[in-house]
Order: sequence, then structure tokens, then C-alpha cells
Amino acid sequence: MHVVSNPPLTPTPMPGVEHATLAGSAQGLTGLSLWSQTLAPGAETPLHRHDCDEVVLCLAGRGEVMLPGRRMFFGANQALCLPRDVMHQIVNNGSEPLRLLAAFGASPVGVYLPDGAAVALPWPT
Amino acid sequence: MHVVSNPPLTPTPMPGVEHATLAGSAQGLTGLSLWSQTLAPGAETPLHRHDCDEVVLCLAGRGEVMLPGRRMFFGANQALCLPRDVMHQIVNNGSEPLRLLAAFGASPVGVYLPDGAAVALPWPT
Repeated sequence: MHVVSNPPLTPTPMPGVEHATLAGSAQGLTGLSLWSQTLAPGAETPLHRHDCDEVVLCLAGRGEVMLPGRRMFFGANQALCLPRDVMHQIVNNGSEPLRLLAAFGASPVGVYLPDGAAVALPWPT
Repeated sequence: MHVVSNPPLTPTPMPGVEHATLAGSAQGLTGLSLWSQTLAPGAETPLHRHDCDEVVLCLAGRGEVMLPGRRMFFGANQALCLPRDVMHQIVNNGSEPLRLLAAFGASPVGVYLPDGAAVALPWPT
């Protein structure tokens, strides 16, 4: 059992995306991960999917989630519930930072692009 | 894929404990759940364990987690990382509401008492 202080957000190779891994393999977890991310206005993730369920809790700001054939808007105090393998992309099309907390039902978290390629994550998972 | 607005916290049969299920089986998830809970000063959970990993993120307040043979204090912007089957009890021994976000690597979430009895949860999971 670990009590860990949330590490600070740090820049990532994705423009405008900052990340912190709050919990995962390094804390002895095998079936759960928790990440904090902030997307600056205009920033976006790539289109991707995971091999586990994901919930993205929006803490502040407004964003858009792009899905196959549709898109949905969301904002603070809403949650995106993404069953495993659902392809998605998150975009901050608002004017404020988009503050997100992402939970995953796996550790490490697998990330895959539309062509099936696995993404080598630039942060601990 | 669901976008859900966080439901309000509501009282539970546990004195001083309010709960909201943010995401789980009702949103099509099978391996992940997200709950919001607030413990009033003096409130506590029973001693219990889960059949999945859990992370408890402390958003506000101060608390104590009781574990077999030891106890640990925690506060805002800290996370408790509880691998599956670790027996634990959370107590608000501070003077402010203890605001928690709990993520689990399963849906539904199994809760078990020290005698092995399964807890019938009074909220959706």
C-alpha cells in the first residue's frame, strides 16, 4: 500500500499536452492506472484506442471527443466512459485549459493507433 | 461511448458518508469503476477489501487509512494505491470534509469484510 503525492504535470512530446502519472505499475498496481493531463486551447491527442476500459473525468474547461462517425462535446463535471477498443481523440476547442483525470482498467496501459501500431508512451505507466 | 454528467452525492447508510457512482456497469464498463465520496469529520468506512486494485485520490481534507498492523495519514493531492485484497479502512479524523475520488479496476466492484462476507452495496456499481 502506497500513499503517493501527486507529481507535477510536465510537458510531453504532444504540443500543448501536459501529463502526470498519479498511480500505476510503479505503485504495485496491475489492473488500474490513473493519469492527470491538461490540454492547452487548441491541443489534441492523436486518434487512438486502449486494450482496457477508460474513464476521462473533466475537471475544468470544455472539449470535444471524436469517435468513429460522430463527435461529442463535454465539459467540467462530466465523464467520458470509453469501453476498451473504442477509437477516440480528445480536442480542446475551448479557450481555457482542459483539465482531465483519466482512469484505466489496466497497468501498464496499452495505446494503439488506427493502423494497429502500439504507441511507446513517453511517461511511466 | 457515454458522456455522463456527474450525479450529485447522496447520503448512504454509513453515517456521514455521501456517495455518487460516476462510471461503472451502467455505462457499459466491465473492468473499471469511478466513485465520488465525501466523509464528514469523524466518519469512517468499515474495514474491507476489494477483489480488484483501487486508487483513492484525495481532493480535499485530511484522513487516515488503517491497514493490517499500521496506519498512514494522507491529505489533498495525495493518492492511496491499494492493490487487490489489501484490507483497509478510511477515517476522516480531520475537521473538514474529506473529499475522495475512488477508481477500481473492475465493474461491478466486489467488497468483502474481514470475515469474508460480501457487502451488498447500497449504490449502483
